[in-house]
Amino acid sequence: MTLVNSLHWTGASLAILDQRVLPAETIYQEYQTAPDIADAIRAMQVRGAPAIGIAAAYAVALSVKQHSEQQPDRWLEAVESDMEILRQARPTAVNLFWALDKMRAALALATTPDTAWSIAREVAEAIERDDLAANRRIGELGADLLTDARGVLTHCNAGALATAGHGTALGVIRTAYARAPLSVYAGETRPWLQGARLTVWELSRDTIPVTLIADSAAAWLMRQGSVDWLVVGADRICANGDTANKIGTYSLALLARAHGVKVMIAAPTSTVDLKLSAGDAIEIEMRDAFELLPDCYRTLEQPVSAWNPVFDVTPAYLIDAIVTERGVAHRPHQNGIQECL
Amino acid sequence: MTLVNSLHWTGASLAILDQRVLPAETIYQEYQTAPDIADAIRAMQVRGAPAIGIAAAYAVALSVKQHSEQQPDRWLEAVESDMEILRQARPTAVNLFWALDKMRAALALATTPDTAWSIAREVAEAIERDDLAANRRIGELGADLLTDARGVLTHCNAGALATAGHGTALGVIRTAYARAPLSVYAGETRPWLQGARLTVWELSRDTIPVTLIADSAAAWLMRQGSVDWLVVGADRICANGDTANKIGTYSLALLARAHGVKVMIAAPTSTVDLKLSAGDAIEIEMRDAFELLPDCYRTLEQPVSAWNPVFDVTPAYLIDAIVTERGVAHRPHQNGIQECL
Repeated sequence: MTLVNSLHWTGASLAILDQRVLPAETIYQEYQTAPDIADAIRAMQVRGAPAIGIAAAYAVALSVKQHSEQQPDRWLEAVESDMEILRQARPTAVNLFWALDKMRAALALATTPDTAWSIAREVAEAIERDDLAANRRIGELGADLLTDARGVLTHCNAGALATAGHGTALGVIRTAYARAPLSVYAGETRPWLQGARLTVWELSRDTIPVTLIADSAAAWLMRQGSVDWLVVGADRICANGDTANKIGTYSLALLARAHGVKVMIAAPTSTVDLKLSAGDAIEIEMRDAFELLPDCYRTLEQPVSAWNPVFDVTPAYLIDAIVTERGVAHRPHQNGIQECL
Repeated sequence: MTLVNSLHWTGASLAILDQRVLPAETIYQEYQTAPDIADAIRAMQVRGAPAIGIAAAYAVALSVKQHSEQQPDRWLEAVESDMEILRQARPTAVNLFWALDKMRAALALATTPDTAWSIAREVAEAIERDDLAANRRIGELGADLLTDARGVLTHCNAGALATAGHGTALGVIRTAYARAPLSVYAGETRPWLQGARLTVWELSRDTIPVTLIADSAAAWLMRQGSVDWLVVGADRICANGDTANKIGTYSLALLARAHGVKVMIAAPTSTVDLKLSAGDAIEIEMRDAFELLPDCYRTLEQPVSAWNPVFDVTPAYLIDAIVTERGVAHRPHQNGIQECL
């Protein structure tokens, strides 16, 4: 079964799969402008750190196309303005900023509006192509660590939908499963249910058996001895190995440590942010309380609120391996992350 | 604001609040027979260990009423048959079995069908009355331990809705809050969302400010230093202090230990099962996979499943205090549970 791509680049527009209505519906929306794509990122129509980066790169390319045609004299200012809108779409995943930096560097090489558009397009396409290649390599390197694993648990969706394809954490699981079957567990990942809606759907389409659990059942599952590795993606990896990922990852890493379960972070190097020395410098996005609160509380006069961080930070000392397309950093807390750079 | 009771005994029927549709709707259903009440327990129309016990006691009383009128010669056999149906409604909370044992002992004192009905009714009413009194005492004893607490986290709903009133864990929080305000956090408690739907609703009706979190955000909340105590109820407490409670409690207790957060189990002595020496003997109820899986997977041919235990067991070594109406067992792993019996 062919995997559905989260992004489809037509050369003149970007079609984005609406991940909010999966798996019940498969709907693409087509975008021609950067601000519209920024809205789609903010609204989580497309999510997943690498996919956000790729979408932003194409958004910049479309911005160059639009503004170089409409205002050839001042196109770069308009593109810069669009890039600023994109930069503010979501704060935590560094891949967004990484992609914007790549696109800015590319545009610096352009001498005319025409070359700017062709360069921007080439670079955006390369970002997507490279991400897919990185995921395949991450899959191989990560699977090498799972040789003796019988059970793995993943969280959120670090799959094809979150990337250019294959996936980071799910890429590792796909590659490992192709070598030798293993039991795959997925946390449902409240409040957006990326695990229940996206990861289960992706794996089932690949005919990889998957067992869904409530997020809070992970410790009890580990206690049964069913899990050897926790394998997750990342939204930002700091220079010391501290890693921001979907809320609940820190919890799972602590629980893994308590049960002798190993922890693998699988992510492309575009997720590494060497400018941040440690995790406490990462900005954690907070989202609306009513992603958690039932609607009926909107009319209550009593003080009801929700605390809804989208990400948490797993300190490096809880991580056994960081796997990128360039290599594996084992026990980054002791050894640093040089091996995966 | 008056709290809504989960059970309303009319003297000739039991009205049960449908907790599955709270907080959007407040609907009572009236029952006259034990098998119908067993169904309501199984379907989680009424839930919460003490409330299940009370409902079962009234069910037995109604069974005595019905069968002593309809078949005065063989009424006890029919009541025994109803009690067996009630016994099989749900396996984990011991209060159900405790209440049935109480009712059986009461019926042994009856010499005629008429006395049986009046005794059964008296004993069932006493079970409800005693539970409310126990909760108020638990509230006082538990609140004594929270004197220095600024933040508490609870899980599921161990409130008025789960008991005859006031609540166990929420009774402690209510009493503590009445003495001195503190920050109250509630985990939403997937898959049934008892935290989001019931605990938030109960506390908000008492105008106690409450902040809802995703279950998987608890560790990150603790990491912020916002929580001093985890306060939860129980479905069964073993002789060594091991405690079965809503899935996720074991996880929270481990995370509490990792962050220096203390753990309180608040429950009436009807929740203590001295016949079980340790938690591994507790039967953990497993419920349907589609409480977690999106409906669209029903038609998928690929192997998709869910692992859906309703409870987990927190080992005594992770518990700082077990609070019953009879006293407080501090560090039960070291000191035993004698002090709360």
